[in-house]
Amino acid sequence: METYKINFEPLGLSGRCRADESLLACAHRIGIGIISLCGGKGNCQSCRMQLLEGTASKPTASELKAYSRQEIKEGWRLACQSYPTSDGKVGLPPTSLTTTQRVQTEGQEVTVSPEPVVTPYQVKLSTPSLTDAQADAARLLKALNHQHRLSCDNIDIGALSQLSPKLRSWNWQCRASVREGEVIAFGPWPSRQLGLAVDLGTSKISGYLVDLDSGQTLAAQGVSNPQISYGEDIISRISYATKSAAKATQLQKLVVKAINQLASDLCAEAKAKVGDIVDAVLVGNTAMHHLLAGLPVKQLALAPFVPAVSRAIDIKASHLGLKFAPGAYLHLLPNIAAFVGADHTAVLLATLNDENKETTIAIDIGTNTEVSLIDKGKITTTSCASGPAFEGWHIKDGMRAASGAIERLRIVDNKVQYQTIDDAPAIGICGSGILDAMAQLYLAGVLGEGGKMDEKNPRVRASDKHLEFVLVGEKEKKGVRRAIVITQQDVRELQLAKAAIRTGIQVLLEANGYGDEKIQKVIIAGAFGSYIDVANAIAIGMLPALPLERFQQVGNAAGTGARLALISRSKRAAAQKIVSGIKYIELANVPGFNQTFMQASYLGRFRLKEGKRKGV
Amino acid sequence: METYKINFEPLGLSGRCRADESLLACAHRIGIGIISLCGGKGNCQSCRMQLLEGTASKPTASELKAYSRQEIKEGWRLACQSYPTSDGKVGLPPTSLTTTQRVQTEGQEVTVSPEPVVTPYQVKLSTPSLTDAQADAARLLKALNHQHRLSCDNIDIGALSQLSPKLRSWNWQCRASVREGEVIAFGPWPSRQLGLAVDLGTSKISGYLVDLDSGQTLAAQGVSNPQISYGEDIISRISYATKSAAKATQLQKLVVKAINQLASDLCAEAKAKVGDIVDAVLVGNTAMHHLLAGLPVKQLALAPFVPAVSRAIDIKASHLGLKFAPGAYLHLLPNIAAFVGADHTAVLLATLNDENKETTIAIDIGTNTEVSLIDKGKITTTSCASGPAFEGWHIKDGMRAASGAIERLRIVDNKVQYQTIDDAPAIGICGSGILDAMAQLYLAGVLGEGGKMDEKNPRVRASDKHLEFVLVGEKEKKGVRRAIVITQQDVRELQLAKAAIRTGIQVLLEANGYGDEKIQKVIIAGAFGSYIDVANAIAIGMLPALPLERFQQVGNAAGTGARLALISRSKRAAAQKIVSGIKYIELANVPGFNQTFMQASYLGRFRLKEGKRKGV
Repeated sequence: METYKINFEPLGLSGRCRADESLLACAHRIGIGIISLCGGKGNCQSCRMQLLEGTASKPTASELKAYSRQEIKEGWRLACQSYPTSDGKVGLPPTSLTTTQRVQTEGQEVTVSPEPVVTPYQVKLSTPSLTDAQADAARLLKALNHQHRLSCDNIDIGALSQLSPKLRSWNWQCRASVREGEVIAFGPWPSRQLGLAVDLGTSKISGYLVDLDSGQTLAAQGVSNPQISYGEDIISRISYATKSAAKATQLQKLVVKAINQLASDLCAEAKAKVGDIVDAVLVGNTAMHHLLAGLPVKQLALAPFVPAVSRAIDIKASHLGLKFAPGAYLHLLPNIAAFVGADHTAVLLATLNDENKETTIAIDIGTNTEVSLIDKGKITTTSCASGPAFEGWHIKDGMRAASGAIERLRIVDNKVQYQTIDDAPAIGICGSGILDAMAQLYLAGVLGEGGKMDEKNPRVRASDKHLEFVLVGEKEKKGVRRAIVITQQDVRELQLAKAAIRTGIQVLLEANGYGDEKIQKVIIAGAFGSYIDVANAIAIGMLPALPLERFQQVGNAAGTGARLALISRSKRAAAQKIVSGIKYIELANVPGFNQTFMQASYLGRFRLKEGKRKGV
Repeated sequence: METYKINFEPLGLSGRCRADESLLACAHRIGIGIISLCGGKGNCQSCRMQLLEGTASKPTASELKAYSRQEIKEGWRLACQSYPTSDGKVGLPPTSLTTTQRVQTEGQEVTVSPEPVVTPYQVKLSTPSLTDAQADAARLLKALNHQHRLSCDNIDIGALSQLSPKLRSWNWQCRASVREGEVIAFGPWPSRQLGLAVDLGTSKISGYLVDLDSGQTLAAQGVSNPQISYGEDIISRISYATKSAAKATQLQKLVVKAINQLASDLCAEAKAKVGDIVDAVLVGNTAMHHLLAGLPVKQLALAPFVPAVSRAIDIKASHLGLKFAPGAYLHLLPNIAAFVGADHTAVLLATLNDENKETTIAIDIGTNTEVSLIDKGKITTTSCASGPAFEGWHIKDGMRAASGAIERLRIVDNKVQYQTIDDAPAIGICGSGILDAMAQLYLAGVLGEGGKMDEKNPRVRASDKHLEFVLVGEKEKKGVRRAIVITQQDVRELQLAKAAIRTGIQVLLEANGYGDEKIQKVIIAGAFGSYIDVANAIAIGMLPALPLERFQQVGNAAGTGARLALISRSKRAAAQKIVSGIKYIELANVPGFNQTFMQASYLGRFRLKEGKRKGV
């Protein structure tokens, strides 16, 4: 039997596929996690892919149903229905990938010319003698001046403390890393300069190790934010920190330790040393930002909600206990408001560009959700407390996106089809699965518009005080140890979460006098946002009912923005400019907020009651 | 009986003196430690004083013997021979004061217009609201700009961390302390800005708390350098620090802790807070400087003896663990060479001025002695390892200048007259006493030119392996518990020490082609140097045989220089200029060094053998 070489992008993985093997089967065989809810029958449409090069079998009826004629022309196929007829290249959209696999794509390259803040210089020094015993620092600065016409007269004290022994061991030749007239690190010549970009989330810390000279991302990893033991959301974290200075310092040290470990792991992966990290950029919500920087957070949570600082700041990494190159700085991108942090700045930095003239909503869904409306170069921003329900908290069988979590779910004829992470036996349900469940239960009529569960549905049962819908029954499948359910209480939590998000969007639209239809593009950033099924999010009224092609799920755009600022000084300036131009709307200040919120809590596509708009 | 009010300067103490009470008796009664070796008989001439205002009894025969006619005209008297006949003011030269009292004079004012590097600004802020929730930092910087036309955009992260709660507790008004475009501290308005000057010696740390706005010294104190447990001199300190990074850090932390304690004690004395110390200047020899700054010291002690850094550096005090105002800097004055540190720079800064056209020797005697020859605007500098003998180390009965130490000593008819610190029973002999003993033993013929002790002298006895001269016999006086002696071995140690110092002076003279007679002024700095009897130092050949009026004992000039640099940015620039112009001579590099050293080890006035000079 003929076999063909197939490349799967953007993973960069390839394998040989027999002519009688579907591309889905081939992908699964070589370890690529493509979602397949219906088990390859062609009816769930979750294994979408695009044939970028090469040819395959003719589209089946299922595929003609799944795609428009134009899409078929562009090579869009269902992996379970396609058999190769030549070598080829397949593009997999993030939505077709399981969580594990999607994380691998997050370290994708950012495309901007490297223009780092730290410049490396090769310096060759003369050897000291009894008749020329000038100080090592003076010798180095003189050589920098003579050899590179660089009149810098400042060496970081930490870098200076390493200079004398290192110059002697490197035989009086070195790399001097210079930032704004200050020598911040030394290395042997030649040696590369590394940078670290960090997205410090309330629950997750993502790190990217970057080669500053090429701009290439060498390694990327995510770890849990260890502060989570002291409060799962921002408010409880702030409340803990304000109890005493020692508790605030404790939270700070936990994160510093985690970032140091992350840096060390990334460097191990890239076969590099943390001492070669000469620059770092960090983004996070304002509370995470303040806690890391050792800034007070009490005034963040009390009206009128004031950050200690909003503009970009540079802190010596060593001041915080971060173990990078001795004189490296940590650049913190500017915050927007007490509840819209530098992470949202980074999202805007990563997604905005001068060519974009479309009216755009950029939204980063998390325990706190930030929303911006970009229209004719002007940005209006707000934030809403969406809570941690979509991260699995306060949901009976909720869990993080980890092995065994249900991440995709469909209800057909009161039967539940689902896909778990790693295809492991189901042990719980993560954010994207929870959203799917809500939507599917609503569409199947199990949940009413108000969110009430239909107690007559055969999969609905009473447990303790509440009704619950059984997604996976006890021992229904091999390996499943206990039932996985969605309770009436879960539904209430999720209604509050989705209402908060929808209200945020609505307030921005109203502030600009717009209806949904004016939105030409919706950029959904963040881990959760990139895994959700947008159609389901529309179905429950969390996102505006717009054509699906207007939505872009851009993954960890905050991390991408942080990397852009890391490798480009222009991007840092651009970030400051973006923030300076933003009009921030405090939800608590908006008349009619409560009414909008209440309406937004109903399931189904969001419709503003007529009387309402006038009231605003 | 009539009484008169007498002011004693520079102590600023005053008291009433009866017409039948000598000024010496009056001074002692009110607690002023004037030296009196002969017990008020008028023949030891140690209680010299100058009547600056008012009148006193006619000069006695003893006084006419002690002073020239001119001096008598100028009011010079012996305190034990003078009785007041009106209110008056008395000037006490440092040499007449006991050690304890002299320390009190070290906090004397420095005379330069305050021109501090840190400027205080009063800032009044508007109160935030839901419609104006800009960050506290932005509000502050904007107000600084509007109210003082100050475009600074940088707040130290430590200062920033205090800003939000403090602004709220100070009702939105504060003092912002600004240094080179950076806000480094906040205080309530009004509040004073303090500075700390530190002279970090190998054995002693002197601290001065200064009001930066007035330039006034508020408090001064000296403490032992706690590193002394890890090596009494520079070389053993370096040797300990190079054993491991942990040991170097240990030495660093010891000094940081001591400076923090010193700062805290000084502030307690001045009823101030360490958090109001917004600037600090530190001087010390290069090894002490490097150890404090966390710089490597190994290369200091190995030929070709290279400092890690020589130019002035500014380090965030918090980086070193110094607990001043959060963003305060520590300014380290420039070093001159591996063995001529910023303390000598400070001595030069304090003693040089543009009007001084005389050929001057400036010498700072310590375990390491630095010497400079200033001639026609040019400075030649060297350093010599004089060792710790003059600080009491390696001397059998040697001790620090503390209560019960013999500090002045005379031998008359083979009887020993002496004065102890605090007039306490003698328990040992400190530097100035040791020098006196050497000279008096030599002048009395007990020591030969080569330093050999006359075993026939009745006070000389054999003990263990060595001869020793009994200064104070067992139970010779009330309270004395054991004999105090100078051993033959002590004499050898002291010969090495004084030879090193004399060689340093000699090398500089020879480098300029000068003989002793060319020196118009000798400035003797340092604690030990200000207590010595210059005539005795000349007698043993440690100092050149010049008329006594050419010598100036200026006390802790390093501390004075540090204070000058603390209160004046011009003085910092001047220090850098001084160092840039210095020609440093490495003794190890001087031909004929050993021969000069050997000749300088003889007792008696130093005479260069004729054949020698040609050899250089």
